[in-house]
Amino acid sequence: MSTGDSNSPFERLLLREIQKVIGDAPIGVSLGQKTVKASGDAGVSRLVIRDRKTLARMVLDPEVGFGDAYMEGRLEVDGDLVHFLEATSQIMRSGRGKSWHNRLFGRWLMFAQGNTRDGSARNIHHHYDLSNDFYKLWLDRKMVYTCAYFPAPAATLEQAQDAKLEHVCRKLQLQPGERVVEAGCGWGSLALYMAKHYGVKVQAFNISREQIQYAQAQAKKEGLTGQVEFIQDDYRNISGGFDAFVSVGMLEHVGHEHYAELAEVIGKAIGNTGRGLLHFIGRNRSQPFSTWIRKHIFPGAYAPTLREALEIFERNNYAVLDVENLRLHYAKTLEHWLERYERAVEQVREMFGPEFVRMWRLYLAGSIAGFRVGTLQLFQVVFAGPERREIPWTRTHLYAGEAGIAEEPGWEKEWTPARY
Amino acid sequence: MSTGDSNSPFERLLLREIQKVIGDAPIGVSLGQKTVKASGDAGVSRLVIRDRKTLARMVLDPEVGFGDAYMEGRLEVDGDLVHFLEATSQIMRSGRGKSWHNRLFGRWLMFAQGNTRDGSARNIHHHYDLSNDFYKLWLDRKMVYTCAYFPAPAATLEQAQDAKLEHVCRKLQLQPGERVVEAGCGWGSLALYMAKHYGVKVQAFNISREQIQYAQAQAKKEGLTGQVEFIQDDYRNISGGFDAFVSVGMLEHVGHEHYAELAEVIGKAIGNTGRGLLHFIGRNRSQPFSTWIRKHIFPGAYAPTLREALEIFERNNYAVLDVENLRLHYAKTLEHWLERYERAVEQVREMFGPEFVRMWRLYLAGSIAGFRVGTLQLFQVVFAGPERREIPWTRTHLYAGEAGIAEEPGWEKEWTPARY
Repeated sequence: MSTGDSNSPFERLLLREIQKVIGDAPIGVSLGQKTVKASGDAGVSRLVIRDRKTLARMVLDPEVGFGDAYMEGRLEVDGDLVHFLEATSQIMRSGRGKSWHNRLFGRWLMFAQGNTRDGSARNIHHHYDLSNDFYKLWLDRKMVYTCAYFPAPAATLEQAQDAKLEHVCRKLQLQPGERVVEAGCGWGSLALYMAKHYGVKVQAFNISREQIQYAQAQAKKEGLTGQVEFIQDDYRNISGGFDAFVSVGMLEHVGHEHYAELAEVIGKAIGNTGRGLLHFIGRNRSQPFSTWIRKHIFPGAYAPTLREALEIFERNNYAVLDVENLRLHYAKTLEHWLERYERAVEQVREMFGPEFVRMWRLYLAGSIAGFRVGTLQLFQVVFAGPERREIPWTRTHLYAGEAGIAEEPGWEKEWTPARY
Repeated sequence: MSTGDSNSPFERLLLREIQKVIGDAPIGVSLGQKTVKASGDAGVSRLVIRDRKTLARMVLDPEVGFGDAYMEGRLEVDGDLVHFLEATSQIMRSGRGKSWHNRLFGRWLMFAQGNTRDGSARNIHHHYDLSNDFYKLWLDRKMVYTCAYFPAPAATLEQAQDAKLEHVCRKLQLQPGERVVEAGCGWGSLALYMAKHYGVKVQAFNISREQIQYAQAQAKKEGLTGQVEFIQDDYRNISGGFDAFVSVGMLEHVGHEHYAELAEVIGKAIGNTGRGLLHFIGRNRSQPFSTWIRKHIFPGAYAPTLREALEIFERNNYAVLDVENLRLHYAKTLEHWLERYERAVEQVREMFGPEFVRMWRLYLAGSIAGFRVGTLQLFQVVFAGPERREIPWTRTHLYAGEAGIAEEPGWEKEWTPARY
């Protein structure tokens, strides 16, 4: 290791400190343009830090310091960003990325961003009400903002999102005329798919105004207003009886301290004879969500271990019927999103400016890295009330035919970014 | 409700007490031959209690009192035994079947039957060393004493047990030459199947002397001694590195208080890059195993909730890849066992006498009822170390071809009980 002759003693001290955090991870660091660690290994990514103040901030809080500096353009990653972030995962796993400053700040966020009804409204507004036009730039045609299901890795994003909607419906074994409640419905893609392809009646809840308005317009366009009701309200206000409960990508916003409330909501909705599906980002081991992500991207977010999520079902004496881990599918989904995002990056810059561009890139790239290396997992859990006897005999019904791809025209066309 | 005119005041008091326990369950009771509750409903099973002492014992401890009296022939169930036991499940679920006497006795068993190394040796010996000739009377040809996998409900038991072995191998994605360790190998069927059909090397552990001797003889017969080593030892003594860990039907004998030890054993065996499968009887809600079953059938047994079992993987930072609930398959498996058992019942009576015949019938019938109504669940969990990247893309590989039935001659022949 060479700390660079032209650096001052203080700078050399800071570089040594950051080197301790990096440890064995294949990452080189330089201040200005001088390389600190260069093993000659092609697998080594290089972090170029612009100034001493940035370096000092990173020593104080490696995780948030790095994220903020990246966002503000005060450091650059020389090499592939996703590979660099994969390399940092071993730092995060070791705990070296969590300084006392980070832990303290993380705890404060947990308090400040709590998911009470008002808190949830603020947290969801922060992310999902950014602008529908922004999300249209890089999501699929149906605006599905959760992990897709790729029957084969080469499937297109549009195919994979449709296959996911189909996969979820098959897991729920929906029958025409049944009543389904959806908690956290995004732009409404699943609710509309369930109504259109399975003939069920859906009440879909979401507290994002932008998303609900879009979903309501979509229901009108597709002539499904008689079957699907989009309701701008908190999941805690779900009432009435249903045959099935489904929630895709909302549990991350519920917060562990509110799982008892969610269990009560599900219990009241489907009783002892219903069934449901919960789809969520999880962990191997219990830990807070990334502090930087909570600061900028998903306030109040928490990804539970599967064990923690199962508290919800155990409270209701529910049977867990099936758990599938789709982690690699989320990495693939995010690769599509990041690619489309980069193709539309000039439009994003016009909308939100250069810092936002870099912030969002780091979020998408970091998520790819997390799902690839397994610091993030993606679980789909199918559950049923204790008195439900009609449980599937095997899981072969999930894999009948073209692996869950419905026949819809237009998939063969090449994707082009939407214009706003 | 009529308590019967010819019963004494004390008998009428006892009958009223037992009626309180039964509550709304569709069960009639009579002392001698007099019916206490007869709603006229064809779905009502009738319990005929022979004498006052038996009735008093049932008031003191409904669960164990009933089981012991059934075993000793001091009561009869008028109607289908399994249906009767399904009806009692709502009594057990309500907690009314657990008197203070039962709870106290249950706690004492938990203490007396603890799964230390010596305790496990005793507990396993009690059940699995009964006699290989006894188990041959009613198990399938390969002597698989765990839940089968029925590609279709009409499959034979032999087909379903082979399909289960295949299902487990596919979930493990075994490759020729890999090293597999099996904890609790029964009579060796899975170890031999893995070696024969997947070309892996297996170390299989079991503390049952009878089972290990049988398995060793079987390995010789099949010419697999070079590939499969059957070791008569406790799972806690597993040492050395392996590519995969598998355990089918042993976790129930580990005991919740020893999960940390099991996690350590698995962690040492497969490290951060291996994978494994755990197959076990589970629960929707945390509760002790049936007191009567622990007293007579499975000393020291405990069926965890899925959440409790996941503690094992969370400790190791392992990813859960797949969970399948095969509860209905265990009900079906047990139906086959009970049917074969009844066909061989005269031989069982010669071997162990009439009380054993009734005890074992109650155990098999009660298990069918439990898996049907869901007081018992059956989980298969696939897991992987945090650094394992080769995780399956989808689960379609489990369902390729004839739903996991290998081609072996002889299945078409009708099953006939073995002769000892």
